[in-house]
Amino acid sequence: MPLSMPDRPVILTGDRTTGPLHLGHYVGSLQNRVALQSTHRQFLLLADAQALTDHAHDPAKVSRNVLEIATDYLAVGIDPEMTTICLQSHLPALADLTLLYMNFVTVARLERNPTIKDEIQARGFGRDIPAGFLCYPVAQAADITAFKATIVPVGDDQAPLIEQTNEIVRRINRQAGTEVLPEARALIPSVGRLPGVDGKAKMSKSQGNTIPLSATADQIRDAVRRMFTDPGHVRAADPGRVEGNVVFTYLDAFDDDPAAVADLKARYVRGGLGDSVVKQRLDDVLEAVVAPIRDRRAAFARDPGHVLEIVRRGTQLARTVTDATLRDVREALGLFALHERCDANA
Amino acid sequence: MPLSMPDRPVILTGDRTTGPLHLGHYVGSLQNRVALQSTHRQFLLLADAQALTDHAHDPAKVSRNVLEIATDYLAVGIDPEMTTICLQSHLPALADLTLLYMNFVTVARLERNPTIKDEIQARGFGRDIPAGFLCYPVAQAADITAFKATIVPVGDDQAPLIEQTNEIVRRINRQAGTEVLPEARALIPSVGRLPGVDGKAKMSKSQGNTIPLSATADQIRDAVRRMFTDPGHVRAADPGRVEGNVVFTYLDAFDDDPAAVADLKARYVRGGLGDSVVKQRLDDVLEAVVAPIRDRRAAFARDPGHVLEIVRRGTQLARTVTDATLRDVREALGLFALHERCDANA
Repeated sequence: MPLSMPDRPVILTGDRTTGPLHLGHYVGSLQNRVALQSTHRQFLLLADAQALTDHAHDPAKVSRNVLEIATDYLAVGIDPEMTTICLQSHLPALADLTLLYMNFVTVARLERNPTIKDEIQARGFGRDIPAGFLCYPVAQAADITAFKATIVPVGDDQAPLIEQTNEIVRRINRQAGTEVLPEARALIPSVGRLPGVDGKAKMSKSQGNTIPLSATADQIRDAVRRMFTDPGHVRAADPGRVEGNVVFTYLDAFDDDPAAVADLKARYVRGGLGDSVVKQRLDDVLEAVVAPIRDRRAAFARDPGHVLEIVRRGTQLARTVTDATLRDVREALGLFALHERCDANA
Repeated sequence: MPLSMPDRPVILTGDRTTGPLHLGHYVGSLQNRVALQSTHRQFLLLADAQALTDHAHDPAKVSRNVLEIATDYLAVGIDPEMTTICLQSHLPALADLTLLYMNFVTVARLERNPTIKDEIQARGFGRDIPAGFLCYPVAQAADITAFKATIVPVGDDQAPLIEQTNEIVRRINRQAGTEVLPEARALIPSVGRLPGVDGKAKMSKSQGNTIPLSATADQIRDAVRRMFTDPGHVRAADPGRVEGNVVFTYLDAFDDDPAAVADLKARYVRGGLGDSVVKQRLDDVLEAVVAPIRDRRAAFARDPGHVLEIVRRGTQLARTVTDATLRDVREALGLFALHERCDANA
């Protein structure tokens, strides 16, 4: 169990529970997490509380996806003996640390955060920004520091969130007069973001442009058939474009024979290679990637009580870790303690 | 114990732990709380977390005053068998509810709060408002609703905070589709605010214009001697002013013989009554009020372990109540629950 890996660097990562995971997540983060779990002490946070910062109107969706995502994790090979899967809303130290840190961050600083600025625009909040949304970088700092994580895998657009976390860490350490919290660094994935099957940069279930990890062979075939290629490539004999051609982007991401993909690209650019041939190859490649995930996912989905038990045990372990950090921080700041004990049977 | 008073209306009130209580608190709130505890289910919150929203730079002060204020409560006659004294920072449901409610309140709404506007100015925050300070009305809504309090004694300048709480209550109830939380009403005291001994409207320990509940006979005598009267009343024979004369304001608040006070006022206005006579009477009156409080306070202060135990037991009880509310609210909103059990030995 992770508690017995004291010398490993600590990673905190996770997902907002707003929808089941898809191939974009697989390429962008899941594969990486499976690789890192054998060398790092990794905590995977099911971020249901953060999900509410822009889904307060739809708590049922946030709730429904908790076990969906936990099942996704297990399906791709996250091993609960190596990685701790835990539920954010059930770790009260995270909320306590958030409120504590909010006293050390100004409203003006939060409003300057470029990630928040972009996301406010993307969500169309306008002037009606929920306070929880403005403050979510502080909550994220609480998450990261509660686990004393030093490595946080994030997209390159999220680097400002790590900078915000480290500002808070330095502020708390300065106030405490001791290094009670470690700084964290962003681990930015080498692979670029996978586009949607329609070619749009942003994948989302609501746009119907994703391939979920539970996709059947038929769903994969249908998604590949609808996939955006080169609108100018009308006949097989025409020369085609590879840039922006989603089928090739997906082959780059999933085909384990890059030489064969390079050869296909060359033929496509010259002319004489029809979309249907390339799509057939991608269909086979994706089916080979997804089939074992789908099968494992189905097996876990048949036993939700087992998945729940994994989340419950992970959350119990995470509670021990995060409660200890809250105590450390409060003690370092000289805050009053009743020295209570809480035997969490999470 | 309060848990066995299910039919009584619930009161939540308390104090930020930033300094020991004084005669201003006695007149403005403590007397009232002692009276209300026999007819209401009353919770007294030692608001150490809220104190940090404008004392983040001085956590030691916030910490030091937790037991000071608990001792003040017991000294004035708060009975822990009738009133639950509890420590805010040790009730994790309050932080969880705060973060949850923050998703239902916009930043613009918080910035419009007149109490917050005034306080931002009074504290000289300027543009550097800590996020925790801007959001403290949400934390206060969490406090009130976590106890399902329907009565909140507040100063008349704090009525907007109750309105903010009720907005959140209605928003949560609408989202939940059920009346999971009750609205609260402000209980505004009939007695006006006691001025400082120097005549300033605001009493504060840092201004040295308060008489603490632990004041010795010498300290009371000294404070009364320094007390602001009528600068135009130079000789005893001169006519004097009663309005704005702090000695008479204090006599109005503490002397239990209003007829005698009225007679003194008439003589003072006519001329022929020296300040020293009125001050002597006030000195006697205040000593009669403070002496028994001071004695009880000294007895409790000799046994801080006993005070700590009272706060610990009160916090344990309050934890049961507030954890139950958090569960109710989460369930009503349809949020995911691991059905964990936490046996808090607070």
